[in-house]
Amino acid sequence: MRVSRVTIAPEEDRLNAQIAFAIEIDKLKRIIRRNHLIDGSRRENTAEHSWYVGTLAMVLGEHAPPGTDLQRVVAMLLVHDLVEIDAGDTFIYDTVAVEAQAAAERAAADRIFGLLPGEQGVWLRELWDEFEARKTPEARFAKALDRFAPILANHHTDGGTWPLFKVKAAQVREKVRIIEEGSPSLGAYALELVELSVARGHLSE
Amino acid sequence: MRVSRVTIAPEEDRLNAQIAFAIEIDKLKRIIRRNHLIDGSRRENTAEHSWYVGTLAMVLGEHAPPGTDLQRVVAMLLVHDLVEIDAGDTFIYDTVAVEAQAAAERAAADRIFGLLPGEQGVWLRELWDEFEARKTPEARFAKALDRFAPILANHHTDGGTWPLFKVKAAQVREKVRIIEEGSPSLGAYALELVELSVARGHLSE
Repeated sequence: MRVSRVTIAPEEDRLNAQIAFAIEIDKLKRIIRRNHLIDGSRRENTAEHSWYVGTLAMVLGEHAPPGTDLQRVVAMLLVHDLVEIDAGDTFIYDTVAVEAQAAAERAAADRIFGLLPGEQGVWLRELWDEFEARKTPEARFAKALDRFAPILANHHTDGGTWPLFKVKAAQVREKVRIIEEGSPSLGAYALELVELSVARGHLSE
Repeated sequence: MRVSRVTIAPEEDRLNAQIAFAIEIDKLKRIIRRNHLIDGSRRENTAEHSWYVGTLAMVLGEHAPPGTDLQRVVAMLLVHDLVEIDAGDTFIYDTVAVEAQAAAERAAADRIFGLLPGEQGVWLRELWDEFEARKTPEARFAKALDRFAPILANHHTDGGTWPLFKVKAAQVREKVRIIEEGSPSLGAYALELVELSVARGHLSE
């Protein structure tokens, strides 16, 4: 419709690029993750997962180190998994796949964030790079929430994906260390959940 | 686990309340809306819809009036539909249901935001009230995006829910006015989509 016009104003070009991005990212709703909803009814998709952790960042913000820019954490979490549109979801306990995934995700980030007008694409790409590098308090807290959510869900669904994929307690404790790095109090809480899951027989040593 | 302890520190009380809220809001993933994904493959759930419009607020922010606090818009959109956990989704073209829905949604807001520690519950409840009242630029822009997304999806799926629920062009143009109030440029774009859908026979006068 817009491209049929003889003259396209620069702001229309921008809006068309933003709409192309909007249409593209709808696909995230079709990427299915390994873990389940907290009621165990079905596997989760990546779009609803992104909403969940973004919202958790708002209500669990006091568990981030003082001075953490929570609004940047929310923004980071809303876009952190967009690369899965091209690269798919990788199960975090599948270490071989995790290695191979990195290059595919970078290419996906180039393509997907590249749909946006220049400086917007750069902004979100940098936010994604920051999340992946986990060097700022914002990125560490965002990653902590990303790791916290599946532990919460597994704990509340008799172990969820843990027995299903033969995940051991030691592997989960390794993920808890990533939570601790972003948030000591959420790390401590997650560790309690893990130990309780072990005690209940929902997670094996 | 925590309640079995003899002494509960106040910060543990807070965390327990926040976790109770986190577990509760996972249910939003099970609330199914009328409209479809942009590829038409299935109906959308409210959690992924909330992610979608929250992310749109980030990339379409320049279409809000100057001075609009976009971070508040994002926060508002992430929680705007939590009330549907209790009150369900109402089709916006079903005017009788929309009336009856208001009281149910207020009761839901009382219960769900009330799970959080005092000031956090008040903060999110006020954000929700602000969204519903549509009196601030933030609320009007948030509502504009909430109305824009289904028009975009319907336009890209041969009319989507419009023919399915016998929605007429005049009803959609009424929703476009709400978009215009929050964002003149997105309103103009949405109106073009509506007219094009009419021209293509995907929306009837």
